[in-house]
Amino acid sequence: MNSVDQRTAEGILFTDQYQLSMAQLYFRQGIHERPAQFDHFFRRYPNYGMHEAGYCVNAGMEWLLDWMQDARFRDEDIAHLRSQRTRTGGQMFGDDFLDYLREQGDFSRISISAIPEGRVVHPNVPLTVVRGPLAMAQILETPLLNQLNYQTLIATKAARIREVSRAAMVLEFGLRRGQDRGANAGSRAALIGGADFTSNVGLSHVLGYPPKGTHAHALVQVFLALGNSELEAFRAYAESYPDDCLLLVDTINTLESGVPNAIRVFEELRAAGHAPMGIRLDSGDLAYLAVQSARMLDAAGFPDTSIVLSNDLDELAIWQIQSQIADEARRHGVDADAVIHRLIYGVGTRLVTSHGEGALGGVYKLVALQEGDTWRPAIKIADSPNKMTNPGLKQAWRIYDQRGQATADLVTLEGEDPRQEEQIILRHPGDHSRHRALHQNEISAVEPLLVEMLRVGRPTLPAPTIEAMRQLRRADVDRLDTGVRRIMTPHIYHVSLSQQLWNLKQQLLSEMGV
Amino acid sequence: MNSVDQRTAEGILFTDQYQLSMAQLYFRQGIHERPAQFDHFFRRYPNYGMHEAGYCVNAGMEWLLDWMQDARFRDEDIAHLRSQRTRTGGQMFGDDFLDYLREQGDFSRISISAIPEGRVVHPNVPLTVVRGPLAMAQILETPLLNQLNYQTLIATKAARIREVSRAAMVLEFGLRRGQDRGANAGSRAALIGGADFTSNVGLSHVLGYPPKGTHAHALVQVFLALGNSELEAFRAYAESYPDDCLLLVDTINTLESGVPNAIRVFEELRAAGHAPMGIRLDSGDLAYLAVQSARMLDAAGFPDTSIVLSNDLDELAIWQIQSQIADEARRHGVDADAVIHRLIYGVGTRLVTSHGEGALGGVYKLVALQEGDTWRPAIKIADSPNKMTNPGLKQAWRIYDQRGQATADLVTLEGEDPRQEEQIILRHPGDHSRHRALHQNEISAVEPLLVEMLRVGRPTLPAPTIEAMRQLRRADVDRLDTGVRRIMTPHIYHVSLSQQLWNLKQQLLSEMGV
Repeated sequence: MNSVDQRTAEGILFTDQYQLSMAQLYFRQGIHERPAQFDHFFRRYPNYGMHEAGYCVNAGMEWLLDWMQDARFRDEDIAHLRSQRTRTGGQMFGDDFLDYLREQGDFSRISISAIPEGRVVHPNVPLTVVRGPLAMAQILETPLLNQLNYQTLIATKAARIREVSRAAMVLEFGLRRGQDRGANAGSRAALIGGADFTSNVGLSHVLGYPPKGTHAHALVQVFLALGNSELEAFRAYAESYPDDCLLLVDTINTLESGVPNAIRVFEELRAAGHAPMGIRLDSGDLAYLAVQSARMLDAAGFPDTSIVLSNDLDELAIWQIQSQIADEARRHGVDADAVIHRLIYGVGTRLVTSHGEGALGGVYKLVALQEGDTWRPAIKIADSPNKMTNPGLKQAWRIYDQRGQATADLVTLEGEDPRQEEQIILRHPGDHSRHRALHQNEISAVEPLLVEMLRVGRPTLPAPTIEAMRQLRRADVDRLDTGVRRIMTPHIYHVSLSQQLWNLKQQLLSEMGV
Repeated sequence: MNSVDQRTAEGILFTDQYQLSMAQLYFRQGIHERPAQFDHFFRRYPNYGMHEAGYCVNAGMEWLLDWMQDARFRDEDIAHLRSQRTRTGGQMFGDDFLDYLREQGDFSRISISAIPEGRVVHPNVPLTVVRGPLAMAQILETPLLNQLNYQTLIATKAARIREVSRAAMVLEFGLRRGQDRGANAGSRAALIGGADFTSNVGLSHVLGYPPKGTHAHALVQVFLALGNSELEAFRAYAESYPDDCLLLVDTINTLESGVPNAIRVFEELRAAGHAPMGIRLDSGDLAYLAVQSARMLDAAGFPDTSIVLSNDLDELAIWQIQSQIADEARRHGVDADAVIHRLIYGVGTRLVTSHGEGALGGVYKLVALQEGDTWRPAIKIADSPNKMTNPGLKQAWRIYDQRGQATADLVTLEGEDPRQEEQIILRHPGDHSRHRALHQNEISAVEPLLVEMLRVGRPTLPAPTIEAMRQLRRADVDRLDTGVRRIMTPHIYHVSLSQQLWNLKQQLLSEMGV
């Protein structure tokens, strides 16, 4: 796509056609400027087939806010819209509506509260609350969902990989398998969710991280094609990067050629006063090869070198590798923990595409509309009680038990303050029969989750660093029950409605005859 | 991401760190300018779990070429690279290498031949052949794979959805579930592969298609929140779009509220001289609801209105819906074919994320390196014969049988012309024992597949229109055996090596002692 087209395709027209059709309808009805509130939330955790998430990690807001600052209906955009035709050849969008878009068609009157990036989040809790004129808040739906769904999906997958990787370094390698330029958002979200570094050069520099990498099979192939050897390729690498020498050892034969050649070069490096970094394994039985490589490296006096594993890794593959090493290492005279502690995981395709569930089903639903001075709650009815939206202006809270562990998220109406109450009633969002009460003496803290991010088009806070987001994530994950953190069949974290919100929902449903 | 950062993250640094490390190593070895050839290909069709592809549809080249025209090492990029540090604090990239990148670091000396976008393609056939100076051809690996892998993945998924949808219209609705801005590449690839239109406004205008859409539940919710009804929401829609009236009927209750209200509005439209377009169903048992809605619309005298289905559709879901309608329609007094013929499929998440297999494993492998006047073939050895690369400069051909059906793709060495031979020997790429001979009297045509796209940095052809790519796709799919087109357990299409290429491969392997 050339750069002129890119500006069009990534600007304010980066939305679905029906958002514009509805905006024009609101305009015709004279309600386009009516203040509206939309909630963004997801209904269920990603389910990867054999395993599922017990929590998600929120991400994407900073880039959405950046996009909103620039997006507006330019003359070229208006001209495109004016060219659209109805079935009978008329103009799809009227000149009066297009004039409105040109004059008012930006996000300068939108306000947003949201749960900060990096925080642990759960289904049916509003992650993002958008208020503003109905027409522009409607047009925002698609770009908001596009940008927040994907980064939250990837931050969540990265957090799972972080979980099984324990203290090991995790490198994000997925650029070649992401969706076009969207891969940059994937690298960013991976860093927020749990990857330590990424191989993505541009994105690393933009975020202030050093990009990481080793070398590819091509390097060895080049040397072989020119009549040289794997050993000479490794020597050349050591010569160029004497203090950062990490060698890919599986181009010919890992244990018979790659590792012995790497050890020879490491010995040369050591003799010259340099400390070699390690090796990378990219094919075959990674657990077996890691044990054997570790044994050979130990025997040669390189117990401190790292072993980078790559090749379709994800949380299950890493878990399996660790189990296999724990089972097999002793048989080969190697300490399993020592092998596991020197591993580094390079995770590509399965992280950047969220293998097993490639999309988070985040939605954006109208929950209130202002009429005069009062907000009218809006609800979406659905066949399943779980798919009904929670109406009205709301706040979200996290309740910590006496151990300091997060015990439930509570969604209340705006103005409610559960911190002031003797006991908090937690209502199951969809099931009438399920509720419980928490007394204040069972609670160590009640924390509001939504933070004002954008006030009438202006960011209210400086963008946090990735490091700050990671700290939020670590702190939140640490306060989760270990059952919720489990990568398979996790405990279900409780998300509840307050009694008042529950009552409002029932009242609206009964008014509608449901 | 702000626009300054975006230029960095989407420019020439949109690559993996190891490409730059290897490029510097080549520079240090004095081989960075050595002409090299890399082949891009994939090793297996996407496998979606319960079902798999029998062919892929190639896509992505035009945008890659656009990117290559603009990408170069700017001063800012050089400054970023200069800031990188080794473990001991030295400069990771030397000033001499950085000077080289600033002066020669673009793709103006790269040449590309490729199979055109829209064509049916198969595993282990070079889809893209890149020639140019080793260092820059190496750096190109990541952005090339990023851009071609994803569009080919999505064009392939779209072709499968096209296959089961037969003559029905297919609309791409996935923008909110794609990977950030990468969703635009998904919309484009969907159009190439088989979608008729997309809801993505900006991308549609850029490509010259009218964007399509209906309305969302929010429209009905707005009216309900203001004390009005679904009927009034529909009336407002009809008033704004009298000739394009397509109503979403499942906000409250599809058969008891939505369809009856839609029919009432359609009657009013008809009385005013307008032809209503139809309804959309977005939840519940879509096949059952389509049959019932069709029955009600027929009874009201609207047999020509469309029924748009959406909600997690993909090729299997569409197939299931058609089967269910075929089974159930008669029981409800409705003609199944008539229902199926009025359906339109809105396909979102599962198309834009290629549900079941979210990445195509396309790779980019060194196959030859020039030394003096001769090209030295390069090969990658691997444990499995199927993972070994095919060495040397090559051409790819498609062989058509006497019925005009594609019977095999043949990979030969450059200079070979199978059209001149009495009989063509087809060797299985990995299995010594499997080969067959085709005599010229069994063959109706032998077609070279690779076309020169970029000659020393300059595009050789005007970019084809999406419509031209679609025609290529339709023509290629029509020439596939129906067994290969099947969406489950397809026949395996034959991809073969010529005798000469087979011999070269064996010779290289034996020289390397494999």
